[in-house]
Amino acid sequence: MGEAPPPQKEYILVITPFEEPTEALDDIRRKHPNVEIKIIRVTFLLNGSWAVNEIKVPDDEYRKATILATSRVLPEPKQAPNLKFIHFFSAGTDHVTNTPIYKDSEVTLTTSSGIHGPQIAEWVLMQLLAFNHHEKQLLAFQREHKWGKLNGMWSIRDYVGQRLGVLGYGSIGRQTARLCKALGMDVIAYTASPRKTPESKRDTGYIVPGTGDEDGTIPSAWYSGVDKASLHNFLKQDIDVLLVAVPLTDQTRHSLGKEEFEILGKNNAFLVNIARGSIIVQDDLIAALKQKEGGLRGAALDVTDPEPLGPESELWDLENVAITPHNSGSGSTYVERSFQVLERNLTNLERGRRLINVVNRERGY
Amino acid sequence: MGEAPPPQKEYILVITPFEEPTEALDDIRRKHPNVEIKIIRVTFLLNGSWAVNEIKVPDDEYRKATILATSRVLPEPKQAPNLKFIHFFSAGTDHVTNTPIYKDSEVTLTTSSGIHGPQIAEWVLMQLLAFNHHEKQLLAFQREHKWGKLNGMWSIRDYVGQRLGVLGYGSIGRQTARLCKALGMDVIAYTASPRKTPESKRDTGYIVPGTGDEDGTIPSAWYSGVDKASLHNFLKQDIDVLLVAVPLTDQTRHSLGKEEFEILGKNNAFLVNIARGSIIVQDDLIAALKQKEGGLRGAALDVTDPEPLGPESELWDLENVAITPHNSGSGSTYVERSFQVLERNLTNLERGRRLINVVNRERGY
Repeated sequence: MGEAPPPQKEYILVITPFEEPTEALDDIRRKHPNVEIKIIRVTFLLNGSWAVNEIKVPDDEYRKATILATSRVLPEPKQAPNLKFIHFFSAGTDHVTNTPIYKDSEVTLTTSSGIHGPQIAEWVLMQLLAFNHHEKQLLAFQREHKWGKLNGMWSIRDYVGQRLGVLGYGSIGRQTARLCKALGMDVIAYTASPRKTPESKRDTGYIVPGTGDEDGTIPSAWYSGVDKASLHNFLKQDIDVLLVAVPLTDQTRHSLGKEEFEILGKNNAFLVNIARGSIIVQDDLIAALKQKEGGLRGAALDVTDPEPLGPESELWDLENVAITPHNSGSGSTYVERSFQVLERNLTNLERGRRLINVVNRERGY
Repeated sequence: MGEAPPPQKEYILVITPFEEPTEALDDIRRKHPNVEIKIIRVTFLLNGSWAVNEIKVPDDEYRKATILATSRVLPEPKQAPNLKFIHFFSAGTDHVTNTPIYKDSEVTLTTSSGIHGPQIAEWVLMQLLAFNHHEKQLLAFQREHKWGKLNGMWSIRDYVGQRLGVLGYGSIGRQTARLCKALGMDVIAYTASPRKTPESKRDTGYIVPGTGDEDGTIPSAWYSGVDKASLHNFLKQDIDVLLVAVPLTDQTRHSLGKEEFEILGKNNAFLVNIARGSIIVQDDLIAALKQKEGGLRGAALDVTDPEPLGPESELWDLENVAITPHNSGSGSTYVERSFQVLERNLTNLERGRRLINVVNRERGY
């Protein structure tokens, strides 16, 4: 056998609002001496929804780039003729589906899906525990210097034997499943496509080492489908906690409304949404949360519709609701792990392997 | 082989402040038709520490009892000559060590150790997550109807790769270890006696099904000893979170003070105490929590010294401290699970097996 051909030179253009992730970049440079990395810093305005300051990426940079790493700043397809793939720092690409490069080009898009699993699953668990263990009242006691007695102290019910339903069994769903299983819960999963074989149950994307459910063996039962009847059949399985972790697509938009909450309400379920606000019909959710009998036990929402949630929304003041400003995935390891995905794909590219975390434009994620 | 002799008649006297646990008692009656159960309800005043209303248990009841199930109401040894064992609804017996029946009799004492594992481990996890994910600030945003931006939002660090040190690897420590392992943490354990063999690592007490670490295989390293040097060696192992879960004994009282916090402070560790307040030198803890450099990152305390903690204590207002009123083990499954331990021991008694959860008076737990 002859020598492998030397890897091609790559020019990685990074457009980022984040501090330069020195360690991650050093790691890439060490493992891939063939790459040149150019960083253009942008500023995000995070007052509510994401916004990007006006920036002008030099034409020459786009032209040279063989790999682009970005959050939402994108060239026109013809500006960047040499792109092998575009790596997104986000888990999804629904925020760029209307751009020419998404709609009119075929350049490969990869996401950072998987890096948020541990962080967001921790947020989910915090919300489940804070609700059950009366955290708000406990914090009020502390503020008042009061060695208090909890209302319903003896009614705190731990999660042993309760059932978690995971709608969308991706990296976040899998890590949440892992945690809930450790709590002593039963876990059931739902995905659009059926997962009958061991191979189809596997997580083929990026997994933070030591987390998740790579083999997909945690769920005691796995449901699937893209029609209402299949979804309803899943929701009827005595679910105590429903985690909404599906990507936003035309199929999932407003897929949880009055009918679905009626089913979940029969078991007085708790709902957690870390996906996108518009997967839920928010007014129907509010009604189900206010219902005295047969409604939802409570909800924890890191996403709302719209975002930011207006100060007049009823949701803020519902005693059984926790709202956070779409921050469950924000953490110090975010940038580092996103570059780990990019590094993995650089290796895959060099070795002629399939890239991981590739977006299927038709499917929408 | 002849028939097994019919089980002896047992008279179980239950002195309890709890609602009659109908299901658990029915279960006992169904499985053990040989037992008679007599219940005497008492009232606990829970304004701070535990207290029991004056109650008078008829002499005749004590005399007939072959098994007593109680929280803290106890007979003189000679009042209850027929006792085979006393079952405590609590995890420990340190609150009765000064009673004649503890000091001057040899009647077998069993505890409900193990039933609190899931509930308290959930409390621990809630505290770890609430601290890291800025829960106080998130709740303040919600109160203010504010889609806010967290201070240090990008500095939230998830627990992947962090190290949990468990001081006292009993049922609570084991379930916390299980949860933290699922978070992606490394776990190390410390016990008074060495646990070098697989057999010695096992949890031989009551375990809530689906929880804990029965085989003791979760810790990546296991330390032991009853001397200061051994403890210090354990504390030096780059611990990020220390869980204090040892029983209160003469050896553990005030075993964590200035020196120990200096060691833990080198790694800026977070401390959790769900055991007893007086295991810690509280003034030293406060100093370590206030220290700007080389101190503790924070603490979550379900127990204090004394209890109730006086309103003037500095602890209440420390920003990096969570205090709860010794309620981490209170939950709806408490009574039910305590009777499951009693049922297990009734079976063991009938079959001539060793009882579980037996107190070693010399060891103190």
